[in-house]
Amino acid sequence: MDKNSMDISFHFDPADLLVGQSIDCVIFGYNTQGLNILVSKLKNLDIWSLLGGFILKDEDMDDAAVRILEERTGLKLPYLKQFHTFGDASRQNISHLQDKLGSFHITETEMIRWLKQRFISTGYLSLVNMEESTPTPDFLSDRCSWIPLSDLPDLVYDHRAIIDKALEFLRNQINYMPIGLSLLPERFTMKELQHLYESILSRSLDRSNFQKKMLKLGFLERLEKKQGGGAHKAPYLYSFHKEKYDQLLKQGMGFL
Amino acid sequence: MDKNSMDISFHFDPADLLVGQSIDCVIFGYNTQGLNILVSKLKNLDIWSLLGGFILKDEDMDDAAVRILEERTGLKLPYLKQFHTFGDASRQNISHLQDKLGSFHITETEMIRWLKQRFISTGYLSLVNMEESTPTPDFLSDRCSWIPLSDLPDLVYDHRAIIDKALEFLRNQINYMPIGLSLLPERFTMKELQHLYESILSRSLDRSNFQKKMLKLGFLERLEKKQGGGAHKAPYLYSFHKEKYDQLLKQGMGFL
Repeated sequence: MDKNSMDISFHFDPADLLVGQSIDCVIFGYNTQGLNILVSKLKNLDIWSLLGGFILKDEDMDDAAVRILEERTGLKLPYLKQFHTFGDASRQNISHLQDKLGSFHITETEMIRWLKQRFISTGYLSLVNMEESTPTPDFLSDRCSWIPLSDLPDLVYDHRAIIDKALEFLRNQINYMPIGLSLLPERFTMKELQHLYESILSRSLDRSNFQKKMLKLGFLERLEKKQGGGAHKAPYLYSFHKEKYDQLLKQGMGFL
Repeated sequence: MDKNSMDISFHFDPADLLVGQSIDCVIFGYNTQGLNILVSKLKNLDIWSLLGGFILKDEDMDDAAVRILEERTGLKLPYLKQFHTFGDASRQNISHLQDKLGSFHITETEMIRWLKQRFISTGYLSLVNMEESTPTPDFLSDRCSWIPLSDLPDLVYDHRAIIDKALEFLRNQINYMPIGLSLLPERFTMKELQHLYESILSRSLDRSNFQKKMLKLGFLERLEKKQGGGAHKAPYLYSFHKEKYDQLLKQGMGFL
């Protein structure tokens, strides 16, 4: 197929969808590079987008978000929370991408016209374990990847602003969300836990103070020492005590 | 006009509005009875609703919320914040109001058909000074009143759930919102400030602890003693130091 044009086939009929409503998912993953976002690359273009989708006429919006997330990551019921709705009249402006679009041609079909209507988009934030996800591109994309937050390429529409808003929400809600439980592997060191919090808050935390506060909360279980390296220097591994974790989230940890 | 039916005239043309999108405002006021909500009474029915409206085709959603709030309260640019979007397919169910509707008849006009479509509604929360507002009913209502939160009547659709969500948001964000500044009169006593926080949190706070923490934040200015009553027992009046208040909000007070 011609590399300078895009042929789009929906796997659904626009007649089944709510008019003017979309969902954009900001899917956070975490590894030693810090926070990552799951984004997909538009077909034949060096432009990326968040993973999103539309709402069926008789579908609850929250259910649509769960369905979209499962379709794109293969994950069933990960942590998912609505954080903001984006309704600026100009949010689908793509003038900032003009040099990347160049002479690229999108055939004007009925579906493209449908996609060009004004959408109000509700943002959902998800925290997933990167190792367990199976990123799956949608009909507009030819690739779908985890990219470190600090290294994101150009994104369509207001998707960069949507990510920034999700990050702000994550920071404000850090004491009320199962951040560690969703983003870390089952067993982790205190240093890894601290690094996660530092990645989200974008600032350093004092090591001994952090450790003291975390242990005082009583939701960490100390396991054996991590293998490899000199035994006397090997750090302890921890896991979360699920029940105590949930209980603390309900009342808010309020300690940072 | 027949008391058992409703004649609705729009002051706008549905053709100018976004399809399926609405805004509902949870407008909080505060007086000695605690938190109040501004609600309006549907014409000829003992059923109440939040104040809301629709979005013009070329209007930013946030601007629509400002416009709607001004139309209903007379207030220009009070504190206003989007808090959640409600998208359940069944949210416009009114079966819980069946006994109140009885044999009430709504003439099926083009406008009524338009109002019956599925709406996804974005909730905006506002904090206003009750004494400065001029409640104004909309085209569906014959009255518009401040009602104490603890005394709310039956509400249409999911409006009660929308209020509960707004309250949850207010509690979670209590350290990041200009709650005192927007809801209290310019001069107030420490007791009034504590009562406001207790109303929002639905729990008692220790008097001396509360006073100590508030004064330590440095955003209160102590004025003269309140007039009336014995001078030795009269409490001091306080006002907010606007700049310090704003500065604290930015970093989060994080003290409760």
